[in-house]
Amino acid sequence: MINHLCIIGVGLIGGSLALALKEYNACRRITGCGRSMENLHKAFDLGVIDDYHTDPAVAVQGCNVVLLAIPMGGMRAVMAAIKPALADSVVITDAGSAKGLIIEAAREVFGEPPAGLIPGHPIAGNENSGITAARADLYRGRRVILTPHENSLEEALHTVAQMWQAAGAEVKYMDAELHDHILAATSHLPHMLAFSLVRELANSPHHDNIFRYAAGGLRDFTRIAESDPVMWRDICLSNRDAILAAIDRYRDELHRLQQAIRESDADTMHDMFAEAHDARAHFRRLLDVRERDCQGSSD
Amino acid sequence: MINHLCIIGVGLIGGSLALALKEYNACRRITGCGRSMENLHKAFDLGVIDDYHTDPAVAVQGCNVVLLAIPMGGMRAVMAAIKPALADSVVITDAGSAKGLIIEAAREVFGEPPAGLIPGHPIAGNENSGITAARADLYRGRRVILTPHENSLEEALHTVAQMWQAAGAEVKYMDAELHDHILAATSHLPHMLAFSLVRELANSPHHDNIFRYAAGGLRDFTRIAESDPVMWRDICLSNRDAILAAIDRYRDELHRLQQAIRESDADTMHDMFAEAHDARAHFRRLLDVRERDCQGSSD
Repeated sequence: MINHLCIIGVGLIGGSLALALKEYNACRRITGCGRSMENLHKAFDLGVIDDYHTDPAVAVQGCNVVLLAIPMGGMRAVMAAIKPALADSVVITDAGSAKGLIIEAAREVFGEPPAGLIPGHPIAGNENSGITAARADLYRGRRVILTPHENSLEEALHTVAQMWQAAGAEVKYMDAELHDHILAATSHLPHMLAFSLVRELANSPHHDNIFRYAAGGLRDFTRIAESDPVMWRDICLSNRDAILAAIDRYRDELHRLQQAIRESDADTMHDMFAEAHDARAHFRRLLDVRERDCQGSSD
Repeated sequence: MINHLCIIGVGLIGGSLALALKEYNACRRITGCGRSMENLHKAFDLGVIDDYHTDPAVAVQGCNVVLLAIPMGGMRAVMAAIKPALADSVVITDAGSAKGLIIEAAREVFGEPPAGLIPGHPIAGNENSGITAARADLYRGRRVILTPHENSLEEALHTVAQMWQAAGAEVKYMDAELHDHILAATSHLPHMLAFSLVRELANSPHHDNIFRYAAGGLRDFTRIAESDPVMWRDICLSNRDAILAAIDRYRDELHRLQQAIRESDADTMHDMFAEAHDARAHFRRLLDVRERDCQGSSD
């Protein structure tokens, strides 16, 4: 049970965690913090938070745990703002999509990453954003990756893990660098591809006909292009090298396929599609098993 | 009402049309044709077809309408096989994803595209295939593009349009070249991108972790990579130039984004993501309106 949690950034991610912790009585008091008084007031009205402040240094006072659920671009400034007001034994965690940068920002602000800092990343969320999209079951059956560093206290790790488990998530541990590499591949790259495809189609002289004659496949494929531009700008700034490397590898792969098409090389094309087909079927089975397990555990 | 329809290729596409025409009493008799006796027998058992043959020249005898619902790569050979057995006034149509090649193949086989040939393309289907995936409502509210050529008879066009309308589809008319350009953008390119992404991820040394930590976004994004490799090989062979051009444009677009990321150009990234975000939201609203209209019309 967490005594007093401060959530800085009360949107889909922070708000959903608050709702889940309240539903399972896993936290006594939740203080919200954000720049928009209107948004904080809405979160308060919705019963997501118990009180709120717009000043982070005020909001974190007396808190046992602080969650930074803001775009990556704001992490360093918020760390600097809360630094003088943090209790000694405070546990700090975050929900950002890049973990190397959190540790780096903490090193700059605190001299070295604090013992209470446990960077984290819930693999959840969708193309919606804002407090009105928050829901208590967002993390149910989802994975949360924690990337403790060389200074991290076992006790702080335990507190953050328990917090996410209380919200129904499965907690995994990983090195920050590996996390950033894997997320670049599974999340950041697909988003870059979807953003680029929608731009490419929208800028076509035939864009009216293109969107008119598109079928369900394109809808699924481009859904993630409706994600928040500010969040994705910040993710690209935060995980730049891994994303650039992933795009490079992808462009090479696409180029190989293009060569097979150009040469009307039927066998190579077939093999490439069949490999992708089989790998996707394998991936689907993994996800199906996970969802079945998850449904089983919620009975 | 069609008197006697021959469907060559009784899978998801041909089988679903047969089921719809039967449900709405729009066809007196449907003969199936394919290479697998087992598949034809299954279609017969499921009530999809009334009789069947494995020899196309036998199957088309006495038919008023012939639908070629086979992969693009088989179109020319089947046209050549049925040519001697076709009735004079027969209407021929197809369900292939590239239309220029249908006209070209007909020119080679028949000397010039027959007056009864109406190339067509139902914008429907999914990553499933085979007769067991067929369903009577597959075309309900979907669009079917017909691409008549310079020789096409008005009466044949009318017959094919009525057939698809009877299955619940909305029929549109378009030049074959424009069709191929638009489909390259809306369907063929996204499939190439999804196949390439899944291959790229599957070949990573971290592929286990990549699929383990992937979320719903990747599932949606890669769904179309489970499509049939043979069908897609044939589509690439059939619409090669338009697909290559679409990939070229896409790679340029991706390269522009990559440059913005490399230069940490926050404003350009934000603008690119925001443009994509807005275009995707516009596209979603178009699809929502279409689905609402479609539900309204089925009341």
